[in-house]
Amino acid sequence: MIIKHIKWNGCVLSVLDQKMLPLEMRWIKCRDLNKIFLIIRDMNIRGAPLIGIVAAFGVVLHIKKGRIKDIFTFDKRINEAVEVLSKSRPTAINLYWALDRMKKVFDNNRDKTLNEIVCILEEEALSIWQEDIDMSHKMAGFGADFINDGDGVLTHCNAGGLATGGYGTALGVFFKAKENGVNFLVYVDETRPVLQGARLTAWELKQAGIKYRLITDNMSGFLMKQGRINKVFVGADRIVKNGGFANKIGTYSVAQLAKIHNIPFYVVAPSTSFDLTLSSEGEIPIEERDSKEIIFFNNISIAPVDSNVENPAFDITPPSLITVIITEKGVINSPFQENIAKIFKLK
Amino acid sequence: MIIKHIKWNGCVLSVLDQKMLPLEMRWIKCRDLNKIFLIIRDMNIRGAPLIGIVAAFGVVLHIKKGRIKDIFTFDKRINEAVEVLSKSRPTAINLYWALDRMKKVFDNNRDKTLNEIVCILEEEALSIWQEDIDMSHKMAGFGADFINDGDGVLTHCNAGGLATGGYGTALGVFFKAKENGVNFLVYVDETRPVLQGARLTAWELKQAGIKYRLITDNMSGFLMKQGRINKVFVGADRIVKNGGFANKIGTYSVAQLAKIHNIPFYVVAPSTSFDLTLSSEGEIPIEERDSKEIIFFNNISIAPVDSNVENPAFDITPPSLITVIITEKGVINSPFQENIAKIFKLK
Repeated sequence: MIIKHIKWNGCVLSVLDQKMLPLEMRWIKCRDLNKIFLIIRDMNIRGAPLIGIVAAFGVVLHIKKGRIKDIFTFDKRINEAVEVLSKSRPTAINLYWALDRMKKVFDNNRDKTLNEIVCILEEEALSIWQEDIDMSHKMAGFGADFINDGDGVLTHCNAGGLATGGYGTALGVFFKAKENGVNFLVYVDETRPVLQGARLTAWELKQAGIKYRLITDNMSGFLMKQGRINKVFVGADRIVKNGGFANKIGTYSVAQLAKIHNIPFYVVAPSTSFDLTLSSEGEIPIEERDSKEIIFFNNISIAPVDSNVENPAFDITPPSLITVIITEKGVINSPFQENIAKIFKLK
Repeated sequence: MIIKHIKWNGCVLSVLDQKMLPLEMRWIKCRDLNKIFLIIRDMNIRGAPLIGIVAAFGVVLHIKKGRIKDIFTFDKRINEAVEVLSKSRPTAINLYWALDRMKKVFDNNRDKTLNEIVCILEEEALSIWQEDIDMSHKMAGFGADFINDGDGVLTHCNAGGLATGGYGTALGVFFKAKENGVNFLVYVDETRPVLQGARLTAWELKQAGIKYRLITDNMSGFLMKQGRINKVFVGADRIVKNGGFANKIGTYSVAQLAKIHNIPFYVVAPSTSFDLTLSSEGEIPIEERDSKEIIFFNNISIAPVDSNVENPAFDITPPSLITVIITEKGVINSPFQENIAKIFKLK
């Protein structure tokens, strides 16, 4: 199942507004860089791979909107786009990876005509999108081998089609296992504060005809204790050299609880989510978001409105809590530092 | 600080509607048994000690509403009240304890005139209420010794004045520590699905002038890892002979996370929350509540409306995860089985 939630017509990127799902299928038309910046910052679209894809189209839109006379204004325009989008969200590495890739493609094609470079950049954004879908399918193939009949698998947040080019990382594994005829049950935790689990993952699984049960974030430990959850699959926003990674807030607790209950914990992410410039997970910048996300719900306050709030959007899980990391290049086992270096051919 | 959230005028029990807090201060007037049953079942009032207190007044209202001609109709009426209220909520033992106490007081006074017995029962309900406040103060005195300057303490759900006769179990400890001039910070987890943390605990701490930070349930593990939470205090809905206990869903995960991070985990509950007929925590019945509590928020769905849901209202924490249990009789240390037997003078 491919979820069609982004459309590109050469001048407009239309995206399905993930803040409104599943209540409403509202499309947002993005015609310029600022709009792309806003939909990333405000989480109308989210998910590390998708942020990268959308950012690439942001660069293309900024180029197409500009009056580009020569290679120098072209260069300036690219840099503007990169600078603006770099500030949209700090944790997912895919954003920086995509911007970097667009910039490199420009640099490698400075000798072409201006129109040719525009076409090349547009094709590059489309390639980033398509490659993401291809990587998802590969990971799903590797990951589905880990799911058996009768499994109760937990996933946190949304690592599905909506978080990616259209297929998904952790959810891709479930889609593939379902295609393979495996009979399993997915526990979907709602993932406060933004409720990506309740709103997005449940919606995707429902469409795919996969059995699921919705739970609140504080229930998974007890379900593990009862033996009802026996595996955990999550995505990642940034994986570093030692295998440690950042992912949606709550991932660390789930990983610890899985470890205590001897439950395998699988991380599913494409190579575009790896940041091999960082040695350990503690170096990953963690985004702190607005307190309103926690205090208000449908614009109605659920706590004293002047409450002090902590709202880290992500947390950090050390490699010691991970069973395997599944990428499109293959399955990475412990010791992660060594095996990541091998699979990425690091010197 | 005593929270005044119940009022008794001899014919009507008025209770502050905890479903509307902190948005609205709405009082519900209860004039008969059925209304008492409904406010307990529907969680307009909640909290183990408070459920016991309100149930006792339910018995009194049912007596006062009835046409009681003789001791036999009186007896029948008492039994009706006990039967109805026993079915309101299954987990908190205080409910059964209070009903049992009212029934015993009736049995011990069958020789009195009907009017005298009514008065005795009314006084008994008032005593249950007052004794709860007294027990809270005693526990607070013992518990406050465990809080030091600079502590970051986590509490789950609401174990405050609103959960009790007016002072609180875990929150009573914080009120007392604050009175003692200790400078500490409380992390309040919102406690999905009913949000007793966000709605009630934050509101109580704010009124008491205690510094707090509101977090979602999935953040506490990461804050423990960062060293920002260094102690946990919770209440209990039922504690059994070996020290294991039931409490709001999520307590088990918090206890496991505290253990991993070497953080002391304190349970604060009066003797009325002990069920010494059960040997181990696995025997405690766990209430499963309506899926609507998770799927809807302010009557707007946050997930596909036909989603299958798990909604256990409580979970079970084994004694191995508890540091000490604080009761009005004193502080109970491990080994709990032995020390509970001692403090309750079990043979």
